[in-house]
Amino acid sequence: MAQERLIVGKNPVREALLAGQALDKVWVAKDVAGLREIKTLAAARHIPVQIVERQRVESLAPGVAHPGVVARAAAHPYVESLDDLVAGLDSPRLLFVLDGLSDPHNLGAILRTAEAAGVQGVIIPRHRAVGLTPAAAKAAAGAAGMVPVVRVAGVAAALLALRREGWRVVGAAHDAPVSCWEADLTPPVAFVVGGEEKGLGRLVRERCDLLVRIPMAGRISSLNASVAAALLVFEAVRQGRRLP
Amino acid sequence: MAQERLIVGKNPVREALLAGQALDKVWVAKDVAGLREIKTLAAARHIPVQIVERQRVESLAPGVAHPGVVARAAAHPYVESLDDLVAGLDSPRLLFVLDGLSDPHNLGAILRTAEAAGVQGVIIPRHRAVGLTPAAAKAAAGAAGMVPVVRVAGVAAALLALRREGWRVVGAAHDAPVSCWEADLTPPVAFVVGGEEKGLGRLVRERCDLLVRIPMAGRISSLNASVAAALLVFEAVRQGRRLP
Repeated sequence: MAQERLIVGKNPVREALLAGQALDKVWVAKDVAGLREIKTLAAARHIPVQIVERQRVESLAPGVAHPGVVARAAAHPYVESLDDLVAGLDSPRLLFVLDGLSDPHNLGAILRTAEAAGVQGVIIPRHRAVGLTPAAAKAAAGAAGMVPVVRVAGVAAALLALRREGWRVVGAAHDAPVSCWEADLTPPVAFVVGGEEKGLGRLVRERCDLLVRIPMAGRISSLNASVAAALLVFEAVRQGRRLP
Repeated sequence: MAQERLIVGKNPVREALLAGQALDKVWVAKDVAGLREIKTLAAARHIPVQIVERQRVESLAPGVAHPGVVARAAAHPYVESLDDLVAGLDSPRLLFVLDGLSDPHNLGAILRTAEAAGVQGVIIPRHRAVGLTPAAAKAAAGAAGMVPVVRVAGVAAALLALRREGWRVVGAAHDAPVSCWEADLTPPVAFVVGGEEKGLGRLVRERCDLLVRIPMAGRISSLNASVAAALLVFEAVRQGRRLP
């Protein structure tokens, strides 16, 4: 397992925030006082702050006396906002939106696929989802620093924003009536792939322009999330390629 | 990490072999005498036996005094031979041949893909490759017991045997001149996918009827092995489907 880098203590975390360091998350013990600055700085940079029992913070940094505040450094910096990501694209082609992935191997494999397929950005939720942890970066085999990743407060709201910007939003659902081979997936398109356990959330499904399924022959009704993401995006590349 | 089940001691391993238990591998300390029966039983069932320093055997079963012989149980039984696997197929469609995969996550994801795509069997080398370990079975999410897996002494020899049986053998190589979208991949076909580090071995490449590449747009020249396997096999399914 790749090593996590933790920043331990109120002042070190405050300084990391002021210095603009890429942080994945901040944990704060309930009983720590004088946290307004840390909360404000984290909020400004969209870094989640979780208020937890002191015990929980202490378990994150074993061997440190009374840590109170602990932050986890991200393996790579995130793009600051969805606007920044989308506005920076010359010609929109492909995006991934991941609705609550929890396995760092899957996120890493998707980043590697994204880089190989020419995906221009990966959108993940800020909460209840795996981020750019060292384990994800390791599984990405070098691609973690090459594909822009942005974290959003809510996936459903992000899909609305993408549609307003002219993106066609296509979700993967095993019960969709249309197969990915029959559907028009030519870029530009943003593919939405669900988490390992539950697939797409109800609201997220409703916000898609189109749901497609990957045709399956076996008894198992779902694929590994990173495999499903790869099949959809390479089908889009196949459909959109200029034939010789 | 899923728990490995070990069988420790000369007699327990002998009995497991006699009972036909699914074993992944047997380790024997150099200085253990009277092993002919174990070696014969293991050879008859194609289970690899590795002769190692006593220290190595002891490190596998910490806390046990002088183990001498240790076997690792497979999470699921293997098919006994390639002949058994191939002869049992009514109508040949799809096979995977994995040339030296080392990551159990990848093997598990490939088994899950295999089940979903209607792949009829997975062929892996007996040595220097990951087997049906508990970690692989966990990543397969239930598919490990559904897709027949066979271990062979050599991948190159297995490809020859498959071709003699009429299978078309297609290998994945990032430097192949033909892309998987231009090539004819209609089933029946056996796809050969290389290990995480080195891709296909030289002899294995030479034994393929055709090498194909997955077209890539990025700076990274290779995909995750389980992603590459899925892209090829689903392209074969796409090409071979009966249109409505």
